[in-house]
Amino acid sequence: MMERLFVIKIGGNIIDDDDKLASFLTSFAAVAKNARVILVHGGGKLATKLAAQLGVEQQMVDGRRVTDADTLKIVTMVYAGYINKNIVAQLQAKGCNAVGLCGADGNLIQSHKRKHATIDYGFVGDVDSVNTKFLNGLLQQGTNIVLAPITHNKEGVLLNTNADTIAQEIAQVMSGLYEVHLIYSFEKAGVLMDANDDATVIKTITPSSYNELKAKQVIFAGMIPKLDNAFAAIKKGVHRVVIGKAEELEGLIESVKGTSIEAESA
Amino acid sequence: MMERLFVIKIGGNIIDDDDKLASFLTSFAAVAKNARVILVHGGGKLATKLAAQLGVEQQMVDGRRVTDADTLKIVTMVYAGYINKNIVAQLQAKGCNAVGLCGADGNLIQSHKRKHATIDYGFVGDVDSVNTKFLNGLLQQGTNIVLAPITHNKEGVLLNTNADTIAQEIAQVMSGLYEVHLIYSFEKAGVLMDANDDATVIKTITPSSYNELKAKQVIFAGMIPKLDNAFAAIKKGVHRVVIGKAEELEGLIESVKGTSIEAESA
Repeated sequence: MMERLFVIKIGGNIIDDDDKLASFLTSFAAVAKNARVILVHGGGKLATKLAAQLGVEQQMVDGRRVTDADTLKIVTMVYAGYINKNIVAQLQAKGCNAVGLCGADGNLIQSHKRKHATIDYGFVGDVDSVNTKFLNGLLQQGTNIVLAPITHNKEGVLLNTNADTIAQEIAQVMSGLYEVHLIYSFEKAGVLMDANDDATVIKTITPSSYNELKAKQVIFAGMIPKLDNAFAAIKKGVHRVVIGKAEELEGLIESVKGTSIEAESA
Repeated sequence: MMERLFVIKIGGNIIDDDDKLASFLTSFAAVAKNARVILVHGGGKLATKLAAQLGVEQQMVDGRRVTDADTLKIVTMVYAGYINKNIVAQLQAKGCNAVGLCGADGNLIQSHKRKHATIDYGFVGDVDSVNTKFLNGLLQQGTNIVLAPITHNKEGVLLNTNADTIAQEIAQVMSGLYEVHLIYSFEKAGVLMDANDDATVIKTITPSSYNELKAKQVIFAGMIPKLDNAFAAIKKGVHRVVIGKAEELEGLIESVKGTSIEAESA
């Protein structure tokens, strides 16, 4: 039997709330006692707030930040510096040995500047490759990994990269070595039938039920790329994908909370 | 014969100058081909500049920054984020595999908040211990290390820590495993007889000549803690300490440039 690896992505609402983050990291440290864990974090509102303080105007297209040179500097500082190192320090305090990295470290995630017919996203990277050997070496030493969503192009340029995509790419490539559980934690209890009611969690989504839900417009906007990534991950060997509340991490891990993304049953 | 390890500290004037930094990193990558290397960087003027932009007032006592909570946030962003990751990305582009870390990562450098009878330095750390096992594990994998001067107290608090001291502490503890060469690179060609003339480099300083130079006030102010650190390092097993210009890194490594700090000859 393959050893389990949990790739856990946390987003904005946890990172922006000191108490929620501390509580999440306590659960994370407990999970890390019995399994290898990689935490991928986004940036929350801190980067946006810092940009406003510095008078750097932010432009969003389709929910993605357009990253000009000043914004790249800000996200590198906030994601790879402030957030990443504070998470690591808190985990160390909880007895969970972790190393905070970005994609440039150990050539962990190589990417290229996004090419798009009409929109210039600036310093935004799309992932080309993951250095599984380096990643696995750290995991096998008993080191948990905290990963900031900054990658590099191997030509000296850092690139701002979607944290959901990074989590997915890592889950996929590590599926050759581990039974990988990919957990997307965010502010809702899962994918909801009624976006305002946490009690309406959809327990399971398969490719065919996904198409129905999209047709009925139960699933739309920001949730679609998240689920597209989830199904792509399953296709590429990830054991399961769970979407749910970061505050319920242990429930997500035990499959009693959140929405489970699964392949079509035969 | 023990394998060589170079611990190289670079300071402000290199970090603040993109061209000088790129040129230094080219030399660094060349050195890294034939020896294990740890680079410890300071922060230059970027943190001070960002603090000014954000309206965070900076207080200096005896050449050390008093680090209040806002300043800690700034130095964590600038040192462990922006500077550290840009150096790593540039090294990767030069074919030099490196990992950027701070003292919290892998519990690399544990410190405590400085205790002082009259001055409250705020979130400033004095080093307690270095995790040589983790450090050596990375070096033996062929990974060079780029270290930001941020440590942690193992209770979840990051601490701003003098980069010269970090370089010294690491050089000392690694002396049990390697023939360690500790190189402090800064804006001058070495310790100078005439502070305004790079041609007046003092080739060698021993403990007794150091006392003379201090008595004559040739050496004063900011240079004294640097040299005190150097002599402490030699006493604790470091093979040699060299002080000189970052632009002359290869000369410093070959002992043809800079000032060499040595134990008293018998």
